[in-house]
Amino acid sequence: MKLVKNAAGRLVPTEVNGQQQIPFKGVNKYKPSGNKAKPPIRTCIDYPKDGNKVVKDLKTALKKAGLKDGMTISTHHHLRNGDVVTNLLFDTIKEMKIKNISWFPSASFPVHSHLIKYLEDGTIHHIEGSMNGPLGKFTSEGKMKGVGILRSHGGRYQSIQDGEVHIDIAVIAAPTADPFGNATGDRGKSACGLLGFALGDSEYADKVIVVTDNLSPFPCVPWQIQGNNVDYVVQVDSLGDPAKIVSGTTEVTKSPDRLLIAEYVAQLLDEAGIMKDGFSLQAGAGGINLAFLLFLKEKMKQKNIKARFMRGGSTKYLVEMLEEGLIDYILDGQTFDLEGVRSMRENDGHVNTSPFTSYNFHGKGNFASMVDAVVLGATEVDVNFNANVVTHSDGYLLHGIGGWQNCLYSKCTILAIPSFRDRIPVIVDEVTTLCGPGELIDVIATERGICINPKRKDLLKTLKKSNLPIRDIKNLKKEVDEICGGKPAKPKLNKDKVVAIIKWVDGTVLDSVFQVK
Amino acid sequence: MKLVKNAAGRLVPTEVNGQQQIPFKGVNKYKPSGNKAKPPIRTCIDYPKDGNKVVKDLKTALKKAGLKDGMTISTHHHLRNGDVVTNLLFDTIKEMKIKNISWFPSASFPVHSHLIKYLEDGTIHHIEGSMNGPLGKFTSEGKMKGVGILRSHGGRYQSIQDGEVHIDIAVIAAPTADPFGNATGDRGKSACGLLGFALGDSEYADKVIVVTDNLSPFPCVPWQIQGNNVDYVVQVDSLGDPAKIVSGTTEVTKSPDRLLIAEYVAQLLDEAGIMKDGFSLQAGAGGINLAFLLFLKEKMKQKNIKARFMRGGSTKYLVEMLEEGLIDYILDGQTFDLEGVRSMRENDGHVNTSPFTSYNFHGKGNFASMVDAVVLGATEVDVNFNANVVTHSDGYLLHGIGGWQNCLYSKCTILAIPSFRDRIPVIVDEVTTLCGPGELIDVIATERGICINPKRKDLLKTLKKSNLPIRDIKNLKKEVDEICGGKPAKPKLNKDKVVAIIKWVDGTVLDSVFQVK
Repeated sequence: MKLVKNAAGRLVPTEVNGQQQIPFKGVNKYKPSGNKAKPPIRTCIDYPKDGNKVVKDLKTALKKAGLKDGMTISTHHHLRNGDVVTNLLFDTIKEMKIKNISWFPSASFPVHSHLIKYLEDGTIHHIEGSMNGPLGKFTSEGKMKGVGILRSHGGRYQSIQDGEVHIDIAVIAAPTADPFGNATGDRGKSACGLLGFALGDSEYADKVIVVTDNLSPFPCVPWQIQGNNVDYVVQVDSLGDPAKIVSGTTEVTKSPDRLLIAEYVAQLLDEAGIMKDGFSLQAGAGGINLAFLLFLKEKMKQKNIKARFMRGGSTKYLVEMLEEGLIDYILDGQTFDLEGVRSMRENDGHVNTSPFTSYNFHGKGNFASMVDAVVLGATEVDVNFNANVVTHSDGYLLHGIGGWQNCLYSKCTILAIPSFRDRIPVIVDEVTTLCGPGELIDVIATERGICINPKRKDLLKTLKKSNLPIRDIKNLKKEVDEICGGKPAKPKLNKDKVVAIIKWVDGTVLDSVFQVK
Repeated sequence: MKLVKNAAGRLVPTEVNGQQQIPFKGVNKYKPSGNKAKPPIRTCIDYPKDGNKVVKDLKTALKKAGLKDGMTISTHHHLRNGDVVTNLLFDTIKEMKIKNISWFPSASFPVHSHLIKYLEDGTIHHIEGSMNGPLGKFTSEGKMKGVGILRSHGGRYQSIQDGEVHIDIAVIAAPTADPFGNATGDRGKSACGLLGFALGDSEYADKVIVVTDNLSPFPCVPWQIQGNNVDYVVQVDSLGDPAKIVSGTTEVTKSPDRLLIAEYVAQLLDEAGIMKDGFSLQAGAGGINLAFLLFLKEKMKQKNIKARFMRGGSTKYLVEMLEEGLIDYILDGQTFDLEGVRSMRENDGHVNTSPFTSYNFHGKGNFASMVDAVVLGATEVDVNFNANVVTHSDGYLLHGIGGWQNCLYSKCTILAIPSFRDRIPVIVDEVTTLCGPGELIDVIATERGICINPKRKDLLKTLKKSNLPIRDIKNLKKEVDEICGGKPAKPKLNKDKVVAIIKWVDGTVLDSVFQVK
C-alpha cells in the first residue's frame, strides 16, 4: 500500500479497497468537480399498483433485490446498541452463502460483535463506517480483510451523494412503516426518534428494503423515509431491545472534575457574549455536555435569554428547555432518550433534521457552520489544537466520528474534556489519529484550565478580564504530564499496515489508523 | 415537422424544439432505461458560512446565477392568478436583454398574459407547461416561437428527474423564507399553502433563487423547500395579490344539473361499495366536486363511515371533514382556500405531499394508484371513454393538465361532467385532444345518466340493481346531440402546424395540439 504525506503531514494511502483516494489538501482547500450520483430511473409499472410492497421475509427481499457477492449493503445506527436487524441481516446473508459484502453502516456498536464471525469467514469484506468497541478492536488488530473507512455523518451523506460509495441494497430498520414503505422512527414499540441517517441511503441506493416491527396502514405519517424510494417492506417481530435503542433517561456526570469543566464552558459562553438572545448551540448527550446544558440553562433563566435553536442529540434536558420556552427550536439530528422521542412527536418546535440539512459539506451550505457554539469531546488533543476522537493513545480504534468533524465548522468549537483519563494525559504532543484540524478548534476546556486557540485573538481579548483559568496549552500539558508521571506511552503500531482511514468532510483522506502490534 | 401515428392513433411529432420525442406506446407499455439527472456537486466553501444568502434584488441573483440566452427558467404556480413574481422575473430578464428563454412553469394563469409581449419579442421562446386562458389562446393561434409542451404535475417531476428538462435557474416564490433559503408556503401575508410543485426544481436545477416577501430568522420551519438546495434569496415587497393566491372561500355549484351530477357520484360511491371504512378519495376543488363532497359527507355520517385519507386540493370542506373526524389524513397536493392553509399549519393530519410522492410515474410507485376513487372533470369525452382536458371543441388550448392524468390511475376514475356546455355536447365521437386514454376511465357521470366503461364488468354487475340512471354512452351521446342540435362543429385546424404537445405520464407524446385557423 502506497502512503503519501497529506497537507496535514499525515501518511495516508492513495488507494483503499481498490478505490483511488484523494489525500487531504487542507481545510476548505479541496473543491469537488463533477456531478452527483444518478440512481436508475424506475417505473410504477414494476411496482404493485395497490402500493403493497410487503414480502414474506428478509431473505425474500434480499433475493428480489438481487443480492450478490461483493455488493455494498448499508444499514443505519438509530437502533444503537439495541439493534437486532443488522445481525439478522448478516445471518441471512450468510445463510444465502453470499461473500465479500462491503458493509456500510452509519455506525456500528458493541451489539454488532455478533458480526465478527462474518468478518472472519469472508461474508463481510470490510466495514465502511464508524466502529465503536469490539469491531474497532478487531480492526485494530489487523484482522479485517479490507480496510475500514470512517466518515463523519456529513461525510457519509457526501460520499453517497457524490457517488464515492454506491449502495447496492439499503436495509432500513423502521419502528413504524406502512406497506408502501413510508417509515418513521418517532413511534412504535422500537421507537428511536429520527431515521435521518438512512435518508441518503433511501435516496441513492439501487434497492431499498424497509424492515419494521410495526406495520401500520398507509399513510405512515410522518414519512421520515419516503415510500417512493422503497422497493420492499419486511415485517419482523422485533427490531431490537427498546431499552438499548433509547435510554429511559440520559445521565448527567457526577464527577466533580467533569462538573467543573461543564461549569467553565457555561461561564465561557456567557462571558464571551455567545449566550445572547437568539443564539444557537449544539451539545451532545455525554455526561459533561448534559451538565453544561444545566449550568447554561440557569444562566439563561437568570438573564432572561432565549436561544433561537439548539441542535440535538436530543435528551430530556433539551426538551425541558424547549417546553419551558428557553429555545424556539430543537433541530434534532439523533434522539437519545424517550423524552426526546415524545417531544419529536408532540412539539412543532422539535424538528427532524438529517445529515443532508445539517452536515453535508458538498451542499449549498449546511446548518453546522451557522451554529454559534458547539461543545464536543475528544480522546486526545495536541498542543496545536488538533484533535482525535476515534483512537486511544494505545492506538486502538474504539470510537466513531459521528457528527463531530461536521460540528467543527461552528462559530466557536469547544472541546470539553478531562485533562487526563486513567492517568493517561489527554493533551499530547501529537495525536495518535488526526480527526479534526486544529485551525477549526477554538477552545479546549479542562478541569485544570481553559486553552484558547491563539488564532482566536478576538476571544482572547474578550475574555481578558475573565476569572476563568485561561492558560497556555503547552503549560497545561506540562502540568498534566507531571501529574501522570510523563507523556502517554507511544502506541505499538505496525506502520506498514493501514487498517482504516479517516475521511475529512470533503471526502479526502485525513489520516490512517495503523495495526496495533 | 415530421408526424407519426402513436399507439393511440394520434399524430405526434418525433422532434420538438430540437429535442427527440418518444411517441406514446400505450398505457403501461413504455419502460424507461437509464439513470436520473445528476446535478453538479457543490461545496460549502462557495456558500456563506453564516448561511446568509440574501442578495440585493432579483437582477443581482439572476446575474450571479449566470443567466444567459437560451436558458430554461422554471417557476411554480402556487400563487395562481395572484402571482406577480413571474411577471417581475421576465421584466427583469427583458431588462437584462436576455433572449430565447424556455419558460418552464408548473402552470400559467391569466395574470401571466403580461408575458405575451415577451413571447412576441423573443425574450421567451416557448412555454413548457400548462397554459390556462390567454397564453393558451396565443399559442393556439400559432404565435409562439417554439412548441408548447404540456405535462401533468407528475409528468413535470418525471421530466426533471429523468433529465428530459434541464432547469438552469429555478425561481421559487416563497410566502416565508429564511436567509439560508429554507422556505414554506403555509404562512406569511402571501400564504399559498404548499410549495410542492417547486420541489423537483429545487432538487435538480443548477441554480435556485428563492423570492420572498416575508424573510424570517433561520430556521424557517417547516422547510417545504430546503435551503441546502438554494443559492440565493431575494426579498421583495409583495409576492402578489393574496385574494387571488387563495380564495377566501371556495364555492359549491348552485346549478341544479351539476348538483344532480354530484349527488349521482356520491350515490355511486356508496352503492359500489367504495365508500366503506378506511376508504380513500381524491376530488378537486371545482363546483361539482365540492358539492359531491358535501353529499358524500352526509352519507358517511349516516353510515358512520370514516375515510383513511383524502387527497386535496384542500378546501374548507375537506378541512371540516378532517376536523370532524371523518378523515384520518388529508394528503394535500395544493391548497385552495384560507381554511386549507390554516389547517395545514395546525392539523397534524393535514399532510403536505408533492408531485414526487403522489404522481411521479418514474418512481417506485406513487400515491395516485392507491386511491380508491377519484372525481375529475373534462372538456370532452368520446364514446370510448377517451377524454380531453386541455382544449375546447373549437380547438383552443385553454386549460392545463394539472394532476388529472396522474389521477387516472386511481382504482375508480370518475369524470363528473355536464353532458353539454353552452349547447355544445361534451360527449363526442372523437376528442379534439387526447389527454387520458379511455381504458383508465371507469365512469362518466352526467346529469342525464351515468356511463360505465364496459371494461368494468365488476362495477356494472355491482350496480345492476341500482336506481342510478346507468346508460350506454352511445345512447346518451345521441340524446345530447339531439338536444344541442347536432354534434359540435369540427374545429378549424391547421394540421401542418403543431403548436403544443401533450405528454403522457411516462414522458411519451400522447397527442398534438394544432394551430386554430
